[in-house]
Amino acid sequence: MRSSEREVNQLRPIKIETEYTKHPEGSVLISVGETRVICNASIEDRVPPFMRGSGKGWITAEYSMLPRATEQRNIRESSKGKVSGRTMEIQRLIGRSLRAVVDLEKIGERTVWVDCDVIQADGGTRTASITGAFVAVVLAFGKLLDKKAIKEMPITDFLGATSVGVLPDGTEILDLQYEEDSQANVDMNVVMTGAGEFVEIQGTGEEATFTFEQLNTMLELANHGLKEIFEIQKEAIGEWVNQIGSINKQ
Amino acid sequence: MRSSEREVNQLRPIKIETEYTKHPEGSVLISVGETRVICNASIEDRVPPFMRGSGKGWITAEYSMLPRATEQRNIRESSKGKVSGRTMEIQRLIGRSLRAVVDLEKIGERTVWVDCDVIQADGGTRTASITGAFVAVVLAFGKLLDKKAIKEMPITDFLGATSVGVLPDGTEILDLQYEEDSQANVDMNVVMTGAGEFVEIQGTGEEATFTFEQLNTMLELANHGLKEIFEIQKEAIGEWVNQIGSINKQ
Amino acid sequence: MRSSEREVNQLRPIKIETEYTKHPEGSVLISVGETRVICNASIEDRVPPFMRGSGKGWITAEYSMLPRATEQRNIRESSKGKVSGRTMEIQRLIGRSLRAVVDLEKIGERTVWVDCDVIQADGGTRTASITGAFVAVVLAFGKLLDKKAIKEMPITDFLGATSVGVLPDGTEILDLQYEEDSQANVDMNVVMTGAGEFVEIQGTGEEATFTFEQLNTMLELANHGLKEIFEIQKEAIGEWVNQIGSINKQ
Amino acid sequence: MRSSEREVNQLRPIKIETEYTKHPEGSVLISVGETRVICNASIEDRVPPFMRGSGKGWITAEYSMLPRATEQRNIRESSKGKVSGRTMEIQRLIGRSLRAVVDLEKIGERTVWVDCDVIQADGGTRTASITGAFVAVVLAFGKLLDKKAIKEMPITDFLGATSVGVLPDGTEILDLQYEEDSQANVDMNVVMTGAGEFVEIQGTGEEATFTFEQLNTMLELANHGLKEIFEIQKEAIGEWVNQIGSINKQ
Amino acid sequence: MRSSEREVNQLRPIKIETEYTKHPEGSVLISVGETRVICNASIEDRVPPFMRGSGKGWITAEYSMLPRATEQRNIRESSKGKVSGRTMEIQRLIGRSLRAVVDLEKIGERTVWVDCDVIQADGGTRTASITGAFVAVVLAFGKLLDKKAIKEMPITDFLGATSVGVLPDGTEILDLQYEEDSQANVDMNVVMTGAGEFVEIQGTGEEATFTFEQLNTMLELANHGLKEIFEIQKEAIGEWVNQIGSINKQ
Amino acid sequence: MRSSEREVNQLRPIKIETEYTKHPEGSVLISVGETRVICNASIEDRVPPFMRGSGKGWITAEYSMLPRATEQRNIRESSKGKVSGRTMEIQRLIGRSLRAVVDLEKIGERTVWVDCDVIQADGGTRTASITGAFVAVVLAFGKLLDKKAIKEMPITDFLGATSVGVLPDGTEILDLQYEEDSQANVDMNVVMTGAGEFVEIQGTGEEATFTFEQLNTMLELANHGLKEIFEIQKEAIGEWVNQIGSINKQ
Repeated sequence: MRSSEREVNQLRPIKIETEYTKHPEGSVLISVGETRVICNASIEDRVPPFMRGSGKGWITAEYSMLPRATEQRNIRESSKGKVSGRTMEIQRLIGRSLRAVVDLEKIGERTVWVDCDVIQADGGTRTASITGAFVAVVLAFGKLLDKKAIKEMPITDFLGATSVGVLPDGTEILDLQYEEDSQANVDMNVVMTGAGEFVEIQGTGEEATFTFEQLNTMLELANHGLKEIFEIQKEAIGEWVNQIGSINKQ
Repeated sequence: MRSSEREVNQLRPIKIETEYTKHPEGSVLISVGETRVICNASIEDRVPPFMRGSGKGWITAEYSMLPRATEQRNIRESSKGKVSGRTMEIQRLIGRSLRAVVDLEKIGERTVWVDCDVIQADGGTRTASITGAFVAVVLAFGKLLDKKAIKEMPITDFLGATSVGVLPDGTEILDLQYEEDSQANVDMNVVMTGAGEFVEIQGTGEEATFTFEQLNTMLELANHGLKEIFEIQKEAIGEWVNQIGSINKQ
Repeated sequence: MRSSEREVNQLRPIKIETEYTKHPEGSVLISVGETRVICNASIEDRVPPFMRGSGKGWITAEYSMLPRATEQRNIRESSKGKVSGRTMEIQRLIGRSLRAVVDLEKIGERTVWVDCDVIQADGGTRTASITGAFVAVVLAFGKLLDKKAIKEMPITDFLGATSVGVLPDGTEILDLQYEEDSQANVDMNVVMTGAGEFVEIQGTGEEATFTFEQLNTMLELANHGLKEIFEIQKEAIGEWVNQIGSINKQ
Repeated sequence: MRSSEREVNQLRPIKIETEYTKHPEGSVLISVGETRVICNASIEDRVPPFMRGSGKGWITAEYSMLPRATEQRNIRESSKGKVSGRTMEIQRLIGRSLRAVVDLEKIGERTVWVDCDVIQADGGTRTASITGAFVAVVLAFGKLLDKKAIKEMPITDFLGATSVGVLPDGTEILDLQYEEDSQANVDMNVVMTGAGEFVEIQGTGEEATFTFEQLNTMLELANHGLKEIFEIQKEAIGEWVNQIGSINKQ
Repeated sequence: MRSSEREVNQLRPIKIETEYTKHPEGSVLISVGETRVICNASIEDRVPPFMRGSGKGWITAEYSMLPRATEQRNIRESSKGKVSGRTMEIQRLIGRSLRAVVDLEKIGERTVWVDCDVIQADGGTRTASITGAFVAVVLAFGKLLDKKAIKEMPITDFLGATSVGVLPDGTEILDLQYEEDSQANVDMNVVMTGAGEFVEIQGTGEEATFTFEQLNTMLELANHGLKEIFEIQKEAIGEWVNQIGSINKQ
Repeated sequence: MRSSEREVNQLRPIKIETEYTKHPEGSVLISVGETRVICNASIEDRVPPFMRGSGKGWITAEYSMLPRATEQRNIRESSKGKVSGRTMEIQRLIGRSLRAVVDLEKIGERTVWVDCDVIQADGGTRTASITGAFVAVVLAFGKLLDKKAIKEMPITDFLGATSVGVLPDGTEILDLQYEEDSQANVDMNVVMTGAGEFVEIQGTGEEATFTFEQLNTMLELANHGLKEIFEIQKEAIGEWVNQIGSINKQ
């Protein structure tokens, strides 16, 4: 039994609040247990220099934590004058994941800026960011569709993420909260599509290792949890659901 | 009549939500109209090097906006690798203002970090930050009192802030929202104590000037607005109100 | 009586030496007591990107101190790799103040760079910078007039600045030198036009507060001092005086 | 058939040259096909501040490419003044992987700095870095053993890395060279121990996805390749081989 | 007798290996005793902004050391976020020296990037860099000639560099290795052309001085050593030798 | 005949004004023709970490130009966030030169900070800085002697610097002003002691070369000019002259 009194395959309660702030094209507050992240999607009508003239769009993500999102206050990266390696890894992961389900040709020469700002952290901030960002991006494209700036929803499939891990006693568990995360031997983030395919797997055994069998058990837990996550996303997305997945992935 | 349909001396609705996030010693979400700022106060058990051995504490503030708190997305200061002049001015103002009503000797060698993060901006973010930060700081000291880490509330008086300005037609107004702020000839921020004294006045006529008479009218509007603000702060502070102001300012 | 043996409303001796260095379009060495600042105005024949095509010009200011302008040597900001909050505040103040009396439309798409470099500091460096910079800017525009690059003097009025404050014994005083500044309860910088209107007021009571009455006394002292300052500026400006103020401020 | 004329499960020729430069405690030049990386391990007799007094050591890695290691010259990160996200990800991966097979308690309060400098790049630079760094670290510990500074080889098992991927036609392949890497749909880096357990899996389908089946095929290819890699490492390590793996991993 | 058992006018063994890596247009590994430097020359088909439209080319150099090229590990300049004064001095010296023997008009609007990366340091890294870089640049121009991108070899003469110095006992010596360099009273770097003229002399007596006589003895030693260096360069350059020096220097 | 109407071996008029600003221990304004540099020497009662406990002192120099010291305004290095290669070279040269005539053991564990700030530039700013800085340093040590903080003047000899060069017509000249410097084929800076020995020689032929004969002519010109410079320094130093050079250089 987990200290959190959850089953090994049980997610924390997830809540996705849309239109959280008024300025962004898509704005979401996602709560995964006590982890809370604001995910804003902004549409800019141009692409970075290396893509100009390509006719294609771009999606990029930034991630940050409020200094006191965590138990100990962290120094702001703007004060330090540089972005940490951890932050860079996370924002590259978020951007890469979203690009896997967006048809960049269909959005024209536009950039989607996804900002994930963690208000409160209790483990799983990067996976919560991906899950929430997906909804924010769909809603932002919805705005473009409403304005007839694009012709069809450029989303090829659902996208969600969760974490899995192995506790010191060898138990594989789903959706680690901070306390579990800090003692786990293995920590793995899994990003999947609605069709059940992998977009990204990042598994790491800091000062530990894991076997083929453990890997498979963890991936099954992730797959199980993500089915529930896609249902919660569907509710948040509302009217646009029907326009996702009607497009076949190649 | 203002475009906002408010009277010239009418504040926007102000709401102060306490215990907004779980980690900080004091955590507040303040809304002033559509401007929303998370104000977190964190207590650290040491002071910066230049104050070590002084027996006194320190209060410092940091201010930031989410990239899409505004109508146009702003580049993160962490990405730019430096903090803008505007941000520095604001965080120096917040810290200085709070220090005017805190008895630093009474808090011992501790640092209070005040983080003001603007979630949504619609004018007046720096004054909303001061008003909200005051509440967060009182609540954080409340925690210290509860733990008997300090002996008495080290707050000498209430502290609030608001903005006043002059519209192009010469009307002086209270509490400018963004639309008004961007067209005003004069913009002034006023920080006052519960006793009705000034802590800070910053008035500026970018490409315009103002007279003694206009200054006086603006200061009266500010004084009027701040009385209401102190009442709202009192409600948010709750039980600790009686311990503020019982201490005579020297 | 002040420790400086000055009357409460007495300025330090002010001297403005023009054509101080040979390269800048306008070059001034201003001495206010022992405070000495080189104020250079440079004209560049283009504007920053955000103003291109507007037909208007721009004025921007930079401020710096020699490392040993002060009693203790300060580390250079170029060595630290960043400009301090204090420096940013001051250079924003200088630029904003100058823009209030310059008709940017009349200078065409040009940038005026104002460099204020403090050679020796004894309090009031930012106000001395504004007073000296005004003269340097007028002289630089004079050069443009001489070359017939512009048609009329684009200055709408005189501009000067001084400081006022409140000593611990409650006395309000004019033009604080360093020793007074470091012990004053309240420190206020006032920027005014020749017409006696305010351009900027920045009053701050670090760990202290001030009343309406004290504010009014300080503003009267500032007004009194600035009249004298405008006379000294007139002498430094020489032939161009008649072309300032003949233009009515709108 | 791959364009490289290799079998799908065939590694490129790997060569590990030891004592490549004279100053480092362990110095290796690893060639994996045309990819060449200098891996130097340096021992410092202290640990970073956050570990002082713990009695344990630390391993950290840095990764860089010569500007012209690639077909197009890259700007040096020292000239840009910051380390890219890609570089940070790689050096975090190398350090984390090594720590999984080093018993940090056995090395005392020492830091092992691992520097991986890519002389020539042709795909797989991060996995070649890990494979080479492992050898450099063993040799560096060998020096400590020779000097009797430590009592036993603090390495718990072999450590190697390789890449696997999926070509656009769906073929899973082992050890991608640059040309293959740039067209692959899926790219996965696998770090394993001599005992056949995973230390790290990072699989990513930039603008593509992959199935459970593809994942399993790729992991088998990696496992196959790593067996060969461990044999090559053994030869390079020479006399110290017997002291690795005699220690049971917990 | 020198501790290195060399004669006072004896160079260390010099070896120049060409085509060291495959991507650069010119790639050389130069060894001067135990000092080893990779010198890569890259041709870019454009010039920096300040030279556009001039019809002329540009040569610029960058210099770096692997962290463990030296006995003590140095922190990477990319980690420190800035390039040291020493590095800047060296790369300015290398670039300036090469420009003295290249006819920039003959290379058209191209930039030659010269990267000197020290693999192992034992004194004289900057002079070895110049000597090696010259060969790399000739080979890179050879590639352009082969492709008929330029019409003639734009090199006006040979270019080499060496160091000379004065030992504490007053002996002048040629080509200081690290041990000698660190105890010498005077250290001088001399860059010369094949015609025996000076391109650059940098002599410095850190905490010591030197006389006219010592200067002359040192310059004769340098002249002597450089004759040998030019012979070694000729062998490395091979077929292109005849095209250098056929052009008269003006 | 030079365009400046000076003889080939004629210095520009040199003026050294002492006690130029009030705070530094030694403060000098040196004018060499139209080049004007403020040289301030500050004494700090501790040394940098790498010298603590050595019983010896340290001298370090910083160099900067006002943005409009030159004909075109330069961007401040503090705004750029980094110090240029040229600035670093110059400040390293100034510091190294001064250390050659200061007996660091005699100053105890103190640091002398030398700040050379160019107010107006017309060629030769680095050599003027050295010549002026020497005087500032002597005066600063004079203050220490007056306070009996040190026992004897720690200066072993006079130190001065000047430039020499070769005009395009082959004429060697002394003390190049900006116009000459910008067209010269060869530019050489020479730092010498009162005893006529070299401290530093830096000669460079950007896109040109020079012969042994030209080198000797230039060094004679420098020697000639420096004799005059030492006389001007003597006058500026006044009473302390007798205490310099009475100490035999070892």
